[in-house]
Amino acid sequence: MDEKRNFTLLTDFYELTMMQGYFREKADDIVVFDAFYRKNPSGSGYAIACGLEQVIDYIKNLSFSYEDVDYLRSLNMFDEEFLNYLAGFHFTGDIYAIPEGSVVFPYEPLVKVVAPIMEAQLVETALLNIVNHQSLIATKASRVCYAAKGDGIMEFGLRRAQGPDAGTFGARAAVIGGCVGTSNVICGKQFGVPVLGTHAHSWIMSFPDEYTAFKRYAELYPDACTLLVDTYDTLKSGVPNAIRVFDEMKAEGKMPTRYGIRLDSGDLAYLSKKARKMLDAAGYPDAVIAASSDLDEYLINSLKNQGAAITSWGVGTNLITSADNPSFGGVYKLAAIRKPEDEEFTAKIKISENPAKITNPGNKTVFRLYNKETGKIKADLIALSDETYNEAEDLEIFDQMATWKRSTLPGGSYEIREMLVPVFLKGQCVYQNPSTMEIREYCQKELNTLWDETRRLVNPQEVFVDLSKPLYDLKQKLLNSRH
Amino acid sequence: MDEKRNFTLLTDFYELTMMQGYFREKADDIVVFDAFYRKNPSGSGYAIACGLEQVIDYIKNLSFSYEDVDYLRSLNMFDEEFLNYLAGFHFTGDIYAIPEGSVVFPYEPLVKVVAPIMEAQLVETALLNIVNHQSLIATKASRVCYAAKGDGIMEFGLRRAQGPDAGTFGARAAVIGGCVGTSNVICGKQFGVPVLGTHAHSWIMSFPDEYTAFKRYAELYPDACTLLVDTYDTLKSGVPNAIRVFDEMKAEGKMPTRYGIRLDSGDLAYLSKKARKMLDAAGYPDAVIAASSDLDEYLINSLKNQGAAITSWGVGTNLITSADNPSFGGVYKLAAIRKPEDEEFTAKIKISENPAKITNPGNKTVFRLYNKETGKIKADLIALSDETYNEAEDLEIFDQMATWKRSTLPGGSYEIREMLVPVFLKGQCVYQNPSTMEIREYCQKELNTLWDETRRLVNPQEVFVDLSKPLYDLKQKLLNSRH
Repeated sequence: MDEKRNFTLLTDFYELTMMQGYFREKADDIVVFDAFYRKNPSGSGYAIACGLEQVIDYIKNLSFSYEDVDYLRSLNMFDEEFLNYLAGFHFTGDIYAIPEGSVVFPYEPLVKVVAPIMEAQLVETALLNIVNHQSLIATKASRVCYAAKGDGIMEFGLRRAQGPDAGTFGARAAVIGGCVGTSNVICGKQFGVPVLGTHAHSWIMSFPDEYTAFKRYAELYPDACTLLVDTYDTLKSGVPNAIRVFDEMKAEGKMPTRYGIRLDSGDLAYLSKKARKMLDAAGYPDAVIAASSDLDEYLINSLKNQGAAITSWGVGTNLITSADNPSFGGVYKLAAIRKPEDEEFTAKIKISENPAKITNPGNKTVFRLYNKETGKIKADLIALSDETYNEAEDLEIFDQMATWKRSTLPGGSYEIREMLVPVFLKGQCVYQNPSTMEIREYCQKELNTLWDETRRLVNPQEVFVDLSKPLYDLKQKLLNSRH
Repeated sequence: MDEKRNFTLLTDFYELTMMQGYFREKADDIVVFDAFYRKNPSGSGYAIACGLEQVIDYIKNLSFSYEDVDYLRSLNMFDEEFLNYLAGFHFTGDIYAIPEGSVVFPYEPLVKVVAPIMEAQLVETALLNIVNHQSLIATKASRVCYAAKGDGIMEFGLRRAQGPDAGTFGARAAVIGGCVGTSNVICGKQFGVPVLGTHAHSWIMSFPDEYTAFKRYAELYPDACTLLVDTYDTLKSGVPNAIRVFDEMKAEGKMPTRYGIRLDSGDLAYLSKKARKMLDAAGYPDAVIAASSDLDEYLINSLKNQGAAITSWGVGTNLITSADNPSFGGVYKLAAIRKPEDEEFTAKIKISENPAKITNPGNKTVFRLYNKETGKIKADLIALSDETYNEAEDLEIFDQMATWKRSTLPGGSYEIREMLVPVFLKGQCVYQNPSTMEIREYCQKELNTLWDETRRLVNPQEVFVDLSKPLYDLKQKLLNSRH
């Protein structure tokens, strides 16, 4: 969203009905809410946290306009005292988050809100909407880029995105996840990322013939001349016409500096290999072969395994919608409450018959343990926020479900990093957003902290996310005290 | 989008590179582009056209700001003459569209743009983005509502939508497709649709116990009291506590007028039947049982077949993302060109080895043929825009692929309706948008023009979409002339 957009009413109605209840009952309670997810999307071994910049914009702009208040009044559910409170509403709490571009794992708080209960409740929906969407697309993009083994991936999905924001913030997330650029111009302008693209079939069809269309395009853009060769017949018409134009440009001494062809239909393995031979034989071994057409990480992986001669990939629908897994199941759960008369937070837990749905109670943080030698992640530790660790000391970690699965990290062999950083303190933003391209670079480093086994597209090795001993004990105590 | 948002740069970069080429080569060519799709989403027998209101807003607001032009200049791809043209750009063409809420079928132009080539090219991406997204969600919503057989479906997906717009325009589309309302407050405010919702688990958890949480909620909202019963244990704690609160409210003479429970986890068939018995036994046969939890049309259908005692459904993720089919494959294809020296349009065709990807050439329209007696759709006819039909005369229609499949509609037995209506003429909007709730009502009527066989969730009967004889002949002529 651009900085002026006000999303205060981008919320589920029940946040407001609950707020009115809190307003009457417990306006001064301070609560801790965690935003976390339970399962990596697309069978991935990790996810990429994304969307924090837009969460920050959202929080900064939180305020109910007169129009908003009038609208809420018209619903006949809210009293004047509460509406009056809304009219003066602003966010006064603390927010901690894992920086955008970080690799993250299930159950870790990606964002933690510590605020008066009404404020913390209101922001649930928009915060989840933003983080769920962008984390989903960044994760998908990182998978597509992994499949391409260093080839450039261009984000081309705007026309199939789920609305304008999905196109624009989705493109932002895709670049953070590893794409080299996007076709989406508004994203380029807003986030300073490269915009890419050449021409469509309509360009070819608007000329009397394919050759003329290519020729005009090459004359117009001699420095970035990728010709779309599949309008009529790729191998019989498109590639020969492209070669003819390259020959003529060369003869005129105007040979394009970056040039090549784009395939957009048909069997990309077969066509690219044939086209490569034709281009090489004509003396254009440096002509790039780009491809698009319903690509995703699995198809790119398969095409590369078949020796497709493609080195540049335009990925649209399946990336911008994360088609095989179009939602990131982030949730936002109450973890602790401090009443005005209390000094400490009281941990809260949500029970479920499904152990995976029982929440982790208390005011928490996330520590990441790295192997000092390799720089790779050893495990993550969800802990209470006041725990401290000393890298010089041995650290025993254990699995929450199978508690006999234990491992001791010898002191000096690991590094420890707290993943949650302060973003808002007492309502003031204390976080400086990096640029999108800086986040992209950071994300590449983050991905390098994973073993290849975890990056594998199918059935990856899981990274251990354990609970600290104090958190584990607290959780057991609360679970047992319910019976 | 609210009316002020400017999406001029919400476009693929190649639209702009092509525009600059057209600007030099053929600025005065007038073209016809069709937006259509090739396959109904989710295996549906139809789709619902949606998004026109936002397309109209988009076209009305088309203009490049100084900032936009500066940004484009910075890319070093565009010359000053072209940038100067962009600075004064506005849309001067004609747009025809099938009204929102209409049932539509593959290959029919949903939107037709007749405009100078640069203008028609620019609008491709945003137009597709908007229509693809909203048509996808409206179609999905109509399926979910069909499965619910008259029960109310509430759209609850904002937190899992692909960004803010996907939540808001998605909720609009879901209501048009048949939902009774949405949890999304900004959608309620912007489009005048009902907003719905009660409370979350956090409400329950913020009180010392479930009973107190229920009691406070019932006192606060005596007229809309749906209690979420699954925070601790649905049948042992949630439902008994709800009944206790209803009993107390009744005893105090404050019995809620609309009241009930919501199930959000566990086996909804089992739990709803058990809860129904408990509520009935306690004297609350009119207590509504609402349910949410990863619902879609298939699960609702299955739960209803198992006799689940649920009459109100909150559908989130799977509806707002159309999870089983998260994109609507709308495309935008050049169909005809008129050069300044020509009087008539010259039809254009895009060839493909895949017959389904060969475009329908020429300046076209869509006629819908209804059986006069039943009011149901008999077939659709894609035709050239200057064709006329007389309902009193016999009309022979035939299948484009299997041309021996013919059918004659006797004169007087059918009604004919032109589906495309003018929206912009010479750059002026000539269309009055109905309200969202009016479109919803129209959509219900549209759905009634389909036989149940076509509405079936799985493997539905296809509606015939034929080409008129003149269009068929033109297409054959163009195909044959290429060899």
